[in-house]
Amino acid sequence: MRLVIEREALIKGLGSISKAISSKVPMPILSNVKMTLNEKGLELLGSDNDLVIRTTVPYMIGDKEIIRNSKPGSALVSFKYLSDIVRHMEGEYISIEVIDEIVLRLDDGKSNFRLNSIKPEEYPDIDLELFGAIFDVKASDLFALVETTAFAASTKDGRPVLTAINFDAHNNVLTTTATDTARLARKKVDIDDNIAFSVNIVAKKFLDIVHSFENEEIVTVAVSDKKIIFSFGFTVISVRLINIDYPNTKNIIPKSFNYYLEVNSREFLAAMERVSVLSSEHEGVVKLVMTEDEVEIMSRTVSVGSANEKINTFQFSGERLEVSFKSSFVSDAIKALKCEDVTIAFVGEMKPFVVKNVKDDSIDMLVTPLRS
Amino acid sequence: MRLVIEREALIKGLGSISKAISSKVPMPILSNVKMTLNEKGLELLGSDNDLVIRTTVPYMIGDKEIIRNSKPGSALVSFKYLSDIVRHMEGEYISIEVIDEIVLRLDDGKSNFRLNSIKPEEYPDIDLELFGAIFDVKASDLFALVETTAFAASTKDGRPVLTAINFDAHNNVLTTTATDTARLARKKVDIDDNIAFSVNIVAKKFLDIVHSFENEEIVTVAVSDKKIIFSFGFTVISVRLINIDYPNTKNIIPKSFNYYLEVNSREFLAAMERVSVLSSEHEGVVKLVMTEDEVEIMSRTVSVGSANEKINTFQFSGERLEVSFKSSFVSDAIKALKCEDVTIAFVGEMKPFVVKNVKDDSIDMLVTPLRS
Repeated sequence: MRLVIEREALIKGLGSISKAISSKVPMPILSNVKMTLNEKGLELLGSDNDLVIRTTVPYMIGDKEIIRNSKPGSALVSFKYLSDIVRHMEGEYISIEVIDEIVLRLDDGKSNFRLNSIKPEEYPDIDLELFGAIFDVKASDLFALVETTAFAASTKDGRPVLTAINFDAHNNVLTTTATDTARLARKKVDIDDNIAFSVNIVAKKFLDIVHSFENEEIVTVAVSDKKIIFSFGFTVISVRLINIDYPNTKNIIPKSFNYYLEVNSREFLAAMERVSVLSSEHEGVVKLVMTEDEVEIMSRTVSVGSANEKINTFQFSGERLEVSFKSSFVSDAIKALKCEDVTIAFVGEMKPFVVKNVKDDSIDMLVTPLRS
Repeated sequence: MRLVIEREALIKGLGSISKAISSKVPMPILSNVKMTLNEKGLELLGSDNDLVIRTTVPYMIGDKEIIRNSKPGSALVSFKYLSDIVRHMEGEYISIEVIDEIVLRLDDGKSNFRLNSIKPEEYPDIDLELFGAIFDVKASDLFALVETTAFAASTKDGRPVLTAINFDAHNNVLTTTATDTARLARKKVDIDDNIAFSVNIVAKKFLDIVHSFENEEIVTVAVSDKKIIFSFGFTVISVRLINIDYPNTKNIIPKSFNYYLEVNSREFLAAMERVSVLSSEHEGVVKLVMTEDEVEIMSRTVSVGSANEKINTFQFSGERLEVSFKSSFVSDAIKALKCEDVTIAFVGEMKPFVVKNVKDDSIDMLVTPLRS
């Protein structure tokens, strides 16, 4: 393998696969990036066993020559050192060459590096063919499906399936659901294809993946038994599924409510944040006391003190109601809704309540109250 | 105690003493701030036993009223919660009041906090009178004395005195010295007073302290047996000294040299940083090979690879010389010198060498080479 490559394009390519390289993997070979120069360009492949990312730096981008003086071949080198070297070099182009199958030489006319290289055949075989249920989806829809729900997934390892987002397709609707059992977030998006699946993807990984779609229009998704593959632009990402049944959350959202509170998101978030300062070491628990004339938010921690604040802008319908909850659960939900006003709908003091954007029926946020 | 205080001024005051509040101190009472409203203003006092900071928020700043509706008194409350509350409030002014000696009430007309309070008499007695050798020094000089040398102090606890900067006054000269035994930094500044002392101050603390002088002209310093006190503006800082003899480093800087290398700081730093990428897991060791015609910097780590780069702009006088060293030792020294060109003066391959700003004789940087 031999090539001269634009340094910025190589940095960007290495950046694209960096999430798939982990120093915590027990197989040392996976700390390497597999570089293959073929007819499409310079292919970069990284894997941590659960997540695989392959991207290709093409020969040309628009009118600009990105790769020249090339001779096909491949190499396997430390991802960390290669990235550090390329970032520290100063030249616009870098000349790269494999020497005797054991050294990757890099030269930008100023500095010269010889990086130990391993035979590429030693890298595990990785299959990135699209198969199973295959469909196209708008990148922005996929992004919204994940970004609106990921926060509600569990961050504890106790029940691994709860660290995942359940990704479901039925009757031309894609649905994502995340819950840590104390709260739940759900988002729906319509699609053209009538496909059916229900899989679980670790929320943190799913979030990393959709962030890499940022500049894309359409993503092709292929869902099979053990993995889900996303293909877009010059990049393919494969992630292993969590093969445990997701809890049944179908009928968990209440259908009718007895109390409705409408507030301005910004004002309500600020008040909750202030009042929960004094309960920060007690999970930020706050109590909301609502009547049609006055809405007050308060907290009290015996060893520290107490705080209270009246909400200025609100509409409340129903009898007097007191509800206590973990303030971060409600503020996470409000932030994910991204709207000016939110409605909180209650069934009763100790029943799960719903935080909603009245103008957007595609999202449900459910929070379980606490005893005060 | 009762007062209405401008919120920003209180935030700034609490910020000034924050370095003296530590959650790691075994005495829980020290997690509090002692607030005293007296004829000068609102005095805020914090201490972690080693470091004490007292600052006063005055009644007026220029024409602006900072404190009004006041009644003298004092209170002792959690520094953390008070700071969090004041930062989260939104009003321009906060009304503060001690109620029944056990609660501090804070109100900005929007939110209302009641913070548990302890009797101020329970706080340890702290003496901040200036005594011992007292002198005035330019804040910028004190800043330079510490900033130029602190990096060379040890960060390991093995020999506590080496985590300190030695601060010395003799013959109208202030000198700071820091060394971790493998390298040394020294800076001198002339002063008017002919005083004499030699004390040791933990480098990290000394650096924190001089950063708080930023907007000052003159600092009054008082050095006594056990502590050193800095007084400026509305603030007094006292820090406990390390009472162990500092190693004798008087005659450690070589007087004559056999080789001189002059390089451009920026170019040389960049080359060292690049070449040391491959030795990052081996303390960033690099080798400098110098002749009058060519200066090359290189590194080699058997398990990783090798790197080399020629320096473009240099002047070298002397026979061919090879010297190996930890690159961070030389780059720390060059960065602290803050000059365009540096001279590195060598006695021989295995002798400590000096990194200098030719135009500034007040600073000495010494580095011990390694076997290559």
